[in-house]
Amino acid sequence: MGVSPGIGHGPAHVLSVSVPEPPEGATYDGEAEPEKERAMTALTQVAGELESRGHRAGGEAEEILKAQALMAEDPGLVVRVRSLIDRGLAAPRAVYEAFARYRDVLAGSGGYLGERAADLDDVRDRVIAVLYGIPMPGLQGAPEEPYVLVARDLAPADTALLAREHVAAFVTEEGGPTSHTAILARSLGVPAVVACPGATGIRQGARVLADGTSGEVRVEPAESDVADAVSANAARRAAYAEAGGPGRTADGHPVPLLANVGGPAELAAAVAAGAEGVGLFRTEFLFLGRSEPPGVEEQVRAYRAAAEAFPGGKVVVRTLDAGADKALAFLPAPPEPNPALGERGLRVFLRHPEVMAAQLDALAQVEGAEVMAPMVATAEEAAWFARECRARDLRRVGVMVEVPAAALRAGDLLSAVDFVSIGTNDLSQYAFAADRQLGAVRALQDPWQPALLDLVALTAAAAAEAGKACGVCGESAADPAMACVLAGLGAGTLSMAAGSLPAARAALAAHTLEECRLAAGAARDAVTAAEARAAARAYLPGLGRLGL
Amino acid sequence: MGVSPGIGHGPAHVLSVSVPEPPEGATYDGEAEPEKERAMTALTQVAGELESRGHRAGGEAEEILKAQALMAEDPGLVVRVRSLIDRGLAAPRAVYEAFARYRDVLAGSGGYLGERAADLDDVRDRVIAVLYGIPMPGLQGAPEEPYVLVARDLAPADTALLAREHVAAFVTEEGGPTSHTAILARSLGVPAVVACPGATGIRQGARVLADGTSGEVRVEPAESDVADAVSANAARRAAYAEAGGPGRTADGHPVPLLANVGGPAELAAAVAAGAEGVGLFRTEFLFLGRSEPPGVEEQVRAYRAAAEAFPGGKVVVRTLDAGADKALAFLPAPPEPNPALGERGLRVFLRHPEVMAAQLDALAQVEGAEVMAPMVATAEEAAWFARECRARDLRRVGVMVEVPAAALRAGDLLSAVDFVSIGTNDLSQYAFAADRQLGAVRALQDPWQPALLDLVALTAAAAAEAGKACGVCGESAADPAMACVLAGLGAGTLSMAAGSLPAARAALAAHTLEECRLAAGAARDAVTAAEARAAARAYLPGLGRLGL
Repeated sequence: MGVSPGIGHGPAHVLSVSVPEPPEGATYDGEAEPEKERAMTALTQVAGELESRGHRAGGEAEEILKAQALMAEDPGLVVRVRSLIDRGLAAPRAVYEAFARYRDVLAGSGGYLGERAADLDDVRDRVIAVLYGIPMPGLQGAPEEPYVLVARDLAPADTALLAREHVAAFVTEEGGPTSHTAILARSLGVPAVVACPGATGIRQGARVLADGTSGEVRVEPAESDVADAVSANAARRAAYAEAGGPGRTADGHPVPLLANVGGPAELAAAVAAGAEGVGLFRTEFLFLGRSEPPGVEEQVRAYRAAAEAFPGGKVVVRTLDAGADKALAFLPAPPEPNPALGERGLRVFLRHPEVMAAQLDALAQVEGAEVMAPMVATAEEAAWFARECRARDLRRVGVMVEVPAAALRAGDLLSAVDFVSIGTNDLSQYAFAADRQLGAVRALQDPWQPALLDLVALTAAAAAEAGKACGVCGESAADPAMACVLAGLGAGTLSMAAGSLPAARAALAAHTLEECRLAAGAARDAVTAAEARAAARAYLPGLGRLGL
Repeated sequence: MGVSPGIGHGPAHVLSVSVPEPPEGATYDGEAEPEKERAMTALTQVAGELESRGHRAGGEAEEILKAQALMAEDPGLVVRVRSLIDRGLAAPRAVYEAFARYRDVLAGSGGYLGERAADLDDVRDRVIAVLYGIPMPGLQGAPEEPYVLVARDLAPADTALLAREHVAAFVTEEGGPTSHTAILARSLGVPAVVACPGATGIRQGARVLADGTSGEVRVEPAESDVADAVSANAARRAAYAEAGGPGRTADGHPVPLLANVGGPAELAAAVAAGAEGVGLFRTEFLFLGRSEPPGVEEQVRAYRAAAEAFPGGKVVVRTLDAGADKALAFLPAPPEPNPALGERGLRVFLRHPEVMAAQLDALAQVEGAEVMAPMVATAEEAAWFARECRARDLRRVGVMVEVPAAALRAGDLLSAVDFVSIGTNDLSQYAFAADRQLGAVRALQDPWQPALLDLVALTAAAAAEAGKACGVCGESAADPAMACVLAGLGAGTLSMAAGSLPAARAALAAHTLEECRLAAGAARDAVTAAEARAAARAYLPGLGRLGL
């Protein structure tokens, strides 16, 4: 399964799982207390390492590694390790068995949660490695030339500090489209194939050709096959390059193409991909894993970095989107039965307005920054946010449309703000009551579902009537056909992962606005997602010519 | 805060919490193992009692008591109790401290979860009572005449087996509108006031007057006050009685009024309240807490009981709505990060079609039963369900509209089925991304939110265009003004808790269909929920006359 597009080839570097299973029934000499102490120290050390590695990596990786660090310090796990040592088990075996209980539940569940089992295994292996005094699993001894990194599954801790220039592709035996490996590969722009059976059986150093678009992996391919794949990929890239410059349709209708950015570290890639600005600058990286909120000065520096990367371009900063599933150490959130339906986004600020105040104070000092709030559901919330922004002379104020009620009432919301930005991922999650993290309901998250297109169309129509701007900043625009349909539905700007921009730019340049509108109408006339996609593509002949 | 309408008066029966806190640092004589055994036996005994009490009560209570039973057997709790006993604590104190850890997290969190802390306390007190050999907290010694039951908070285990005729009202010091006390009071039709500060200070046997509509509680009221309250209430009831018979507007437009029913035990109350049928017959009671699914014969008996309670009337049976938050012992569900957005309702059947097959087989044997599926999001799902039903010659087949996508695409869904039934509670939860269990986002769950009314209107319009039926079976119709608005939006039937039917019937009878339509239009033209309610009521002058 290809999860990050492009062609990569080079010698395989197979990451072996070198941490052995501690022998069953292993015991220890001496007292229980020092053995428990040893286990606690190892857990704390690994948690600290994961957290500091995350801090260095920043962005999405930081969040993931922080979650792993929390696993290592889970109170239930700690109690269980201690009690197993009380019953005579040696610390490594106690750790192994304590983790196993959680692992079995996760692994048996498939989908998103099943994919999290790999993260848990990685934490366990690291703790056991510390207890045994053996080296951590990792990248030691990788080839000098760009290599294809092969593993059972890549742990976020490994990929976070990987130098992009040394890796030609990722190939993993496990994982899925929502595994951290996939998410990070796309954010690094490295081609990746996951769920490739037998991958770890590939001989160390064997030549590997991986196609992150088709999902094909070949071991020791013929020279001609490599050449063919590389030249097909080059042709695609040439088509992208030809469609360089600002986003526009074939008849010159401008559709500015912006990047979704998780932190300052990702700005360079956005510039390199030809982004005309940042349509979604996430600010969670400033807040997660800290015991105190960042000061105004630190925030000003981060937001200014984004504004300076795109002089004269658009930069839209989204205020903090925290919640029970991304809890902040300085704003402890109670557990919630359904965090995605709980106090997240703007709702957290209603309870803690001081955090929003500091963020808006910082943004007021950054020339050219626009600001928008996440998880707005009603006109009252939009008006409250707008008042707080206007009080600080912030010029361009908007709200995300990612809750169905906000799409249905976009006109009411727009009477208080200057623009709306549609977050298709969350909008689809709520419109279909289908957790975006959950593989089992994946079909409902298909961005081609006609009901989702209806909500985009309603929002864009309300913005047009109000004479205000409507953009889309969900990942659905990463499908080049969808980029055309969104433009046809009335989205004025499209924002997506930097790596997806060239294909979207080429697709738009190959079609007139009228073709995009016809494609959008055909998609909305369909009943199922598959029919919508096929109907739209029938009006977008340029896609085939581009190999998209 | 009034949470269940009506007037109740009588002597107070104050339920004291008679289980003492086990002394701090209490130790035990003898070995750890027998002490642990004692604790485990008490936990198991209490779990068993709660479960069997739930089984006897049936319906909603069964589900709640089952959840409490699970608390008593939580593996994390058991591990903690054992480890505290290992450290020398006596079993009662170990139980007390192990529960305290969970309690603090819940109690600190407010809203729905905060309200669950009372359930946890009740389980703890029961276990400690068993260990000390003292009587369970309960209703022993209550007066013979109808009394006002006063407590810090009522535990589901207490209220479940309460005889309705002995209780005039509930008054609790804690709790909220979503506490189990409130839910059960409404289902018993007992007036209730919760969150009444100082309530447990009321002297045992003092005369109490409780108004479950206004939330007012008076101790030792003047005779004349009691007489006034009782006569106002009687006038309201007389108005209800005058509007007896089938639901219809003042100009004779029929709006059949149906009951939402949680199990056969609730059928008599529905008949007594003048329900014209059952708009929502929940079937979870047949499945929860069982190690094997019920057989076809058992199901036939249950469904037939509903059909026989309303000879010639409508009875709509909803297929099982299970999911990760209401896990079935015979279909273990993996934990999900957001169960409300996970595999629930019809989605469970996609994986376990045999469970649905048995349910449909049973329904095919019950003359007059209609059937509908919960949590349908797409036309494909509706078509799949309809095919399975038609294959068994089921005549009237429908789907719930409780996912926003289903409301947006109601026309597509209706091409496969005969009717839709709007579940306003879940529809609002998803449309606003606001957990219906969570007090902190309560404002977003207001059924007067205009975006929710939009979704109802879209669905009803699609049904009208298709010439098919559209009902509403959410609790929002329990507000008499909303009952009129829903009729005005185009709902053909209204289904609600039996206790809410008389007020809805009276409200409809006091207004013409045109007044209902004008009220609905005014509500949709509003921007906020409060404005929508006020705008609608301005078109419904009969409500004031009825004291509604």
